[in-house]
Amino acid sequence: MKRRFDIAEELENGFVIEADTGLKWHRERFRVLYADTDKAGAVYHANYLKYFELGRAGLIRATGKSYKEIEATGMFHPIVDLRVRFENHADYDDQLSVYARPREIEPVKFGYDYIVRNDETRTLIVHGYTVHCCISKRFRVLPADPVTVKIFAEFGVVRAKR
Amino acid sequence: MKRRFDIAEELENGFVIEADTGLKWHRERFRVLYADTDKAGAVYHANYLKYFELGRAGLIRATGKSYKEIEATGMFHPIVDLRVRFENHADYDDQLSVYARPREIEPVKFGYDYIVRNDETRTLIVHGYTVHCCISKRFRVLPADPVTVKIFAEFGVVRAKR
Amino acid sequence: MKRRFDIAEELENGFVIEADTGLKWHRERFRVLYADTDKAGAVYHANYLKYFELGRAGLIRATGKSYKEIEATGMFHPIVDLRVRFENHADYDDQLSVYARPREIEPVKFGYDYIVRNDETRTLIVHGYTVHCCISKRFRVLPADPVTVKIFAEFGVVRAKR
Amino acid sequence: MKRRFDIAEELENGFVIEADTGLKWHRERFRVLYADTDKAGAVYHANYLKYFELGRAGLIRATGKSYKEIEATGMFHPIVDLRVRFENHADYDDQLSVYARPREIEPVKFGYDYIVRNDETRTLIVHGYTVHCCISKRFRVLPADPVTVKIFAEFGVVRAKR
Repeated sequence: MKRRFDIAEELENGFVIEADTGLKWHRERFRVLYADTDKAGAVYHANYLKYFELGRAGLIRATGKSYKEIEATGMFHPIVDLRVRFENHADYDDQLSVYARPREIEPVKFGYDYIVRNDETRTLIVHGYTVHCCISKRFRVLPADPVTVKIFAEFGVVRAKR
Repeated sequence: MKRRFDIAEELENGFVIEADTGLKWHRERFRVLYADTDKAGAVYHANYLKYFELGRAGLIRATGKSYKEIEATGMFHPIVDLRVRFENHADYDDQLSVYARPREIEPVKFGYDYIVRNDETRTLIVHGYTVHCCISKRFRVLPADPVTVKIFAEFGVVRAKR
Repeated sequence: MKRRFDIAEELENGFVIEADTGLKWHRERFRVLYADTDKAGAVYHANYLKYFELGRAGLIRATGKSYKEIEATGMFHPIVDLRVRFENHADYDDQLSVYARPREIEPVKFGYDYIVRNDETRTLIVHGYTVHCCISKRFRVLPADPVTVKIFAEFGVVRAKR
Repeated sequence: MKRRFDIAEELENGFVIEADTGLKWHRERFRVLYADTDKAGAVYHANYLKYFELGRAGLIRATGKSYKEIEATGMFHPIVDLRVRFENHADYDDQLSVYARPREIEPVKFGYDYIVRNDETRTLIVHGYTVHCCISKRFRVLPADPVTVKIFAEFGVVRAKR
């Protein structure tokens, strides 16, 4: 399980280099709303998936096109699998960052990794992943669209051999 | 402001008669999820609008057609105005009811009234309304669809004269 | 991956027996709200975690105590790990069921499995799990509380030996 | 009903001056998530209340203290009344702004006004208000706290005479 996440270098456009691994990630900052909390006083677990969406959208946009533009070409990226692991709780009004990067790409599936961290305290909050496929409006499974292939190539994540 | 809401009579299909006014309402029961609460320990205010939706959907369905079936005829009922007034807080796991009934109908607008109550303690939690218009898929404003007109007629709510 | 989920027998109190495995599950029924959908027309993925909560709460209540009563004894069950796998999409107004049962119990962690199914079409929508620990108000990790231990025992899920 | 909202001048710290009225507002920018949309393709109505919260939190913070700091003094600002009026729909990925300013203050109630606008197209999306009271942890109604009184004074909104 991942216990640390430190930044070695800040690049342009919200990209950063992770200290331990040398991996590139994209960062989106946000603040925890009252709406995101529950009666235990911390962020309700399901809301981390919205933060993951924020991170994924920022990563895609930062490579040149938005997910909205991908959908405008008639392709959708529904989630087929996701996992979230919780290390620490986050509280109301905390200034958090979600870090996202491509995870792996297969012929008809591709995934993203996420880290949510409190940048002020450097506390790792959650980490997880989502796996997507690429479908047409009529639910036909397609190969990953060119924008997605480009993102994965830029991060050096190549199609897994089977 | 409304301070009491008591039931005089239970009819079939989830309909009830209010004691003070003799008005007919439709009731949907639900229980407060952890997801609906916030760090103050009670239901986050925006979630009452989801309970209103539950009540409105139940009322429409109970008169013979569902809102899904209305949409299948190419008509949508977007909200143009809403208000919520808060009398008491509701807590996690409370068994609540949302009561809904038609409010008024105008040539191109129609509304619903809502009461959320804790039936066990008879505590009034919130009351409010939503006002809708009827539009086509291309956002053209239409007269209220026949299902909606029927609901309002059954409750004796007739088109307001201006 | 799980592709089928059929019910062999309906027991009292919302419990059922799965056909293929003979396993006991607890069922909670609900209907998809407009609020739960997204612009792709189906349920937004994060909302399945709310359905899982509904299922978990129903299972706990059906064994004699509510999760609210567990919390009243000063214990909390935060999620430390969760996974959701998506087989089919669910649409607005679909009448769904969430089935829940204990998954495994370890000295300081315990989990639940979930199935979300459209009972009318018998379509499996998602399956997944959540893993929890038991903590005090001051975030001290505790052994699982007696109510939880009882639930797991009733389902014949015993503490894993490692 | 409010049909236009134009900015005459941009001040520091996210404050702006409205063209038609000369009123000062505070602005917070955000982008519409997929999570915020519904199957009609636009933002689900209840989510505007989260945007209002974002705007209110930004306004309070910009005057020197955060709402979190107000709560740390043992005071809470639950909503007692709210209204939202919808002029136009907002879509996925739209870059929106929520503008907030004090509305009025009474001995035990105070409110905020909100505008949500698409700054790119200058389209007014919704406008509305929330009314709050100030309570202690034990639900005792208190006069508005000093931070709130200061915000209202800075905007020249004085206590209504009755």
